[in-house]
Amino acid sequence: MTASGSAPARRRGRPGHDLSTVLAASVAVFNERGYDGTSMEDLSARLGIGKSSIYHHVESKEELLRLALDEALVGLEEVAQQVRDQAGPAVQRLEMLLRRSVTVLVDRLPYVTLLLRVRGNSEVERQALTRRRRLDHLVADLVSEAVGDGALRPDLDPAVVARLLFGTVNSLTEWLKPTSEQTAVKLGDVLCSLVFDGLRRVS
Amino acid sequence: MTASGSAPARRRGRPGHDLSTVLAASVAVFNERGYDGTSMEDLSARLGIGKSSIYHHVESKEELLRLALDEALVGLEEVAQQVRDQAGPAVQRLEMLLRRSVTVLVDRLPYVTLLLRVRGNSEVERQALTRRRRLDHLVADLVSEAVGDGALRPDLDPAVVARLLFGTVNSLTEWLKPTSEQTAVKLGDVLCSLVFDGLRRVS
Repeated sequence: MTASGSAPARRRGRPGHDLSTVLAASVAVFNERGYDGTSMEDLSARLGIGKSSIYHHVESKEELLRLALDEALVGLEEVAQQVRDQAGPAVQRLEMLLRRSVTVLVDRLPYVTLLLRVRGNSEVERQALTRRRRLDHLVADLVSEAVGDGALRPDLDPAVVARLLFGTVNSLTEWLKPTSEQTAVKLGDVLCSLVFDGLRRVS
Repeated sequence: MTASGSAPARRRGRPGHDLSTVLAASVAVFNERGYDGTSMEDLSARLGIGKSSIYHHVESKEELLRLALDEALVGLEEVAQQVRDQAGPAVQRLEMLLRRSVTVLVDRLPYVTLLLRVRGNSEVERQALTRRRRLDHLVADLVSEAVGDGALRPDLDPAVVARLLFGTVNSLTEWLKPTSEQTAVKLGDVLCSLVFDGLRRVS
């Protein structure tokens, strides 16, 4: 985890309540009650520690939000970079992007769930939205390029297709349970098979 | 609208601030700030009327939530009933369900958006989730039936496919802007073409 990775250098956590534990519990509460509906008292109650112990790790509730969103965004941005570095046809890079995004989503489910609920109510949220939009643009660019290559059908609006694609991936956060990497790979298979080849049985 | 339709019989609203106006403004604030993060003061400020004027229409913030969720659920349940009443192959009824759900979603966008963010934090929310689950089951049943008919591919897990399908439809709430019915029909076309026939160009 990026957040826990940088934590020990900054402040020492108490045993059993290091920053990554505090962050994981906070994200769970944010997802249940909404970030704005969660107080530091709520987090303190969930963790069973005093507020001062939380402030030992972070300066504010907003810093917890920033660290949690970073956890999701860094994972997705790494995938985007791998895809940008990849040679080969756009349709293959698009498929790689979808599959690896599913893996990140399964791997960092509560963090991505939180990210997808961000509405831009603060500077931290707006920065997260800007980073998210860059990822969405990559999907849109790859769809357009793959249509231009003749690999994807030209009759469907690439902008709408791109939105449906990342909408389909993102909707996984609505029903997925924490699960294994193996399941993530299978899920990526079904999703890619659905979107590229369609559900209809070709006789 | 169902809510405004039943309102005049109950309590008289002031001109320009009937229940449907109060409801529409409340849903906008709920979607921006989260239901739990919204107070009656917030609603009062947004509407530019006193809290007592809001209580003239509803007994509580929760009643606003219930009315708003009902607005979305009634629309979707009507579509589900039309599909259940329809004869013909399951694959056709599934396509009809997807297309008409898109129309309801476009038509009642803020209400469906609110519905999809409900987490079950109260009895009102839990009842809405129960009704939503019935709609999801209809999608799953139709997918299974269409696979059984040989109309859809048998190699993809019908339960996962069903979830991806309603996930794809629901994800429209993440990026759609209020738009025309014509656009809803076109959007249904692209969505159905994508999920049934796939994006890949068949040469």
